[in-house]
Amino acid sequence: MDSDKIRKNFFSIADIGRNEDGSITRLLFSKEYEEAKIRTRTYMEEAGLATAIDPVGNIHGFLQSEDPDAKTILIGSHLDTVIQGGAYDGLLGIIAGVETARELEETGHKLTHHLEIIAFNGEEGNDLGGTFGSRCAMGLVPAEDNAYLKKAKAFGLTKEDLLKSRMNTKNKSCFLELHIEQGNTLWQAGEEIGIVNGIVGLVRYKITAWGQSNHAGTTMMEHRKDALTGMAKLMAEADRLARDYGNHMVATFGKVEVTPNAVAVIPGKVEAVLEIRNLDEQLLERFYEELTCFSQELMPITFTFEKLVEKTPQTCDERIIEVIERLCSKKDIAYRVMPSGATHDSVAMADQMPIGMIFVPSKDGISHNGAEYTTWSQVMTGIRLLYETVKAVDKLHI
Amino acid sequence: MDSDKIRKNFFSIADIGRNEDGSITRLLFSKEYEEAKIRTRTYMEEAGLATAIDPVGNIHGFLQSEDPDAKTILIGSHLDTVIQGGAYDGLLGIIAGVETARELEETGHKLTHHLEIIAFNGEEGNDLGGTFGSRCAMGLVPAEDNAYLKKAKAFGLTKEDLLKSRMNTKNKSCFLELHIEQGNTLWQAGEEIGIVNGIVGLVRYKITAWGQSNHAGTTMMEHRKDALTGMAKLMAEADRLARDYGNHMVATFGKVEVTPNAVAVIPGKVEAVLEIRNLDEQLLERFYEELTCFSQELMPITFTFEKLVEKTPQTCDERIIEVIERLCSKKDIAYRVMPSGATHDSVAMADQMPIGMIFVPSKDGISHNGAEYTTWSQVMTGIRLLYETVKAVDKLHI
Repeated sequence: MDSDKIRKNFFSIADIGRNEDGSITRLLFSKEYEEAKIRTRTYMEEAGLATAIDPVGNIHGFLQSEDPDAKTILIGSHLDTVIQGGAYDGLLGIIAGVETARELEETGHKLTHHLEIIAFNGEEGNDLGGTFGSRCAMGLVPAEDNAYLKKAKAFGLTKEDLLKSRMNTKNKSCFLELHIEQGNTLWQAGEEIGIVNGIVGLVRYKITAWGQSNHAGTTMMEHRKDALTGMAKLMAEADRLARDYGNHMVATFGKVEVTPNAVAVIPGKVEAVLEIRNLDEQLLERFYEELTCFSQELMPITFTFEKLVEKTPQTCDERIIEVIERLCSKKDIAYRVMPSGATHDSVAMADQMPIGMIFVPSKDGISHNGAEYTTWSQVMTGIRLLYETVKAVDKLHI
Repeated sequence: MDSDKIRKNFFSIADIGRNEDGSITRLLFSKEYEEAKIRTRTYMEEAGLATAIDPVGNIHGFLQSEDPDAKTILIGSHLDTVIQGGAYDGLLGIIAGVETARELEETGHKLTHHLEIIAFNGEEGNDLGGTFGSRCAMGLVPAEDNAYLKKAKAFGLTKEDLLKSRMNTKNKSCFLELHIEQGNTLWQAGEEIGIVNGIVGLVRYKITAWGQSNHAGTTMMEHRKDALTGMAKLMAEADRLARDYGNHMVATFGKVEVTPNAVAVIPGKVEAVLEIRNLDEQLLERFYEELTCFSQELMPITFTFEKLVEKTPQTCDERIIEVIERLCSKKDIAYRVMPSGATHDSVAMADQMPIGMIFVPSKDGISHNGAEYTTWSQVMTGIRLLYETVKAVDKLHI
């Protein structure tokens, strides 16, 4: 593999949507996305792939096997970014797929499977929902829902566009995705590869603390029903519990609203959103039970918990994990098997086929930010590993 | 004293600004305030007082002593309310003063002091600052400050208006104020009277917790710098410290702002305003020192404390406290000596003369609310006590 050439190709797409501050904004269906879409198609064709673009803006590159009845190994990730995002998030997985295909072509290695590289649109949070492109491909968007269709129309999309973007999911072998970790576990440990064993499940609760608003000067401590102090104690307990659980359990209060939020008034009501993530659904359930139980100790403040969002964990295919582990050991690559704390296109794909994911390190765990960075040597280790993985998976009966 | 007549007079003013929900809105310089001002002047004149209205809308009622060189005992409180406030806050102290004067007149009791009843404007928080009317009377508003004069102009006030409202503070004996407690200490204890020993000092700090914003899914607990969890622990400690201190120490986090305040993002920065109040300045200082010291245990989160407001405590005159205590004991009134957690016009007056304050109970501690309530029997106990207090203070050499 020609590292310099790959790097040049990478930045020929990464730079599209580059802002003055160095960050990149390439939102779904934006002018920048359209430009990147055309460039990506050309890049795929230069690598020897037949291409197609579906109505929702996903770009597909094909490398046919000699056996027309063969199953297809899919490789993909997303081409869009968040507002002021980084170069590597998403794009790296597309490059890794295309370079894998190119290397197979150039070395004359024939796969028994077909190979298809996909650059997905709209994986990042957006009005049509995150992992939009991959969910369209898997038929997971509510194409019969009028409210949803109205939102889609704002992007120039019809119901037919959504339906036509659905892939034929028969005869698919598996979906492979290379992605930056977006956490600092690998970088901090000095490891080059993360082999993902699953994408964590997620539950969000709107928690409301109910107290009584009152005068901050005249209401003595013993007469207070301070909703904010109650919520603060709950937050501290959630932090303690998550650390106590270990096993990659994370708990985050990201959003808080205090009522009335005035300097000299004891808060009567506080709403906050708690998000917990883990690969083990039972652990998520136990966490919720322990926290609600603790909340009852905070009388006279009372708490209500309302589930806002629940996403079940997705497990990566054990055979694929084993293949990648064996390759890392053979090539003496420092790696760890780990869950993904973030959602990826793989989650949508997992609805219909086995999935496998490879992580490369994120410097200081920074992502969704112009400072997002992976050394090029780490990138190449990832791309080469994906290439070897495809050759090895090709030999499995998946 | 004619309880029914007093009650009728009270509500003839209290009802001005009454909202559909039963609460009262009588903001400084509003149409409702102007109407109440005229009614209050008439009410004072009906009680036998000579009256004057100063340029900032304070209403003065005079009862002359036979000795033209006598000092003046002042009684007063405020005629304005907060938005959707209650009937008793402020107005009750004016009524108590006027009825005291009326009773002296009707019983033919001659004071050696002159007596002046004042209904102040703008005591509640407003654009010109709380205790506006009493601060004008004491020459405590920044009448030379152009920015302040611009704000005053919005209410139709000139620099001359502010300056002319300044009272001659020579030959003033003391200022007495009857007010509702606005806390639930008396109501809960079943006591009828609070003898105020001072108005607490107050310090407000803007506290900023500095962490690092990051992805809520990919950043493991051990790698987090969660500013909100840090702030939550500080809040819980402030609550614990205040309860531990006792002695009427109160600590309140009323206002919080989380950045970026997004569901799936670890908060990188949290700003909150802490307010502490106590009669003892040294206790306030010690509280601050202990809390900042504790904050250093919350690494890697760092904290900055910025003092926003500092108001020193004001002490009530011990001779006046003694007089009121003696009267309560004599009349077998259940009372307690207690600090005022809220600010009052008395604080401005204390700049120039001794002050004394009497509290009557607030049902469930509710004030600044249409549900604010004191039983009429409690009101009458307060008014009669103020009347007796004036007669007793008249005999002191104040």
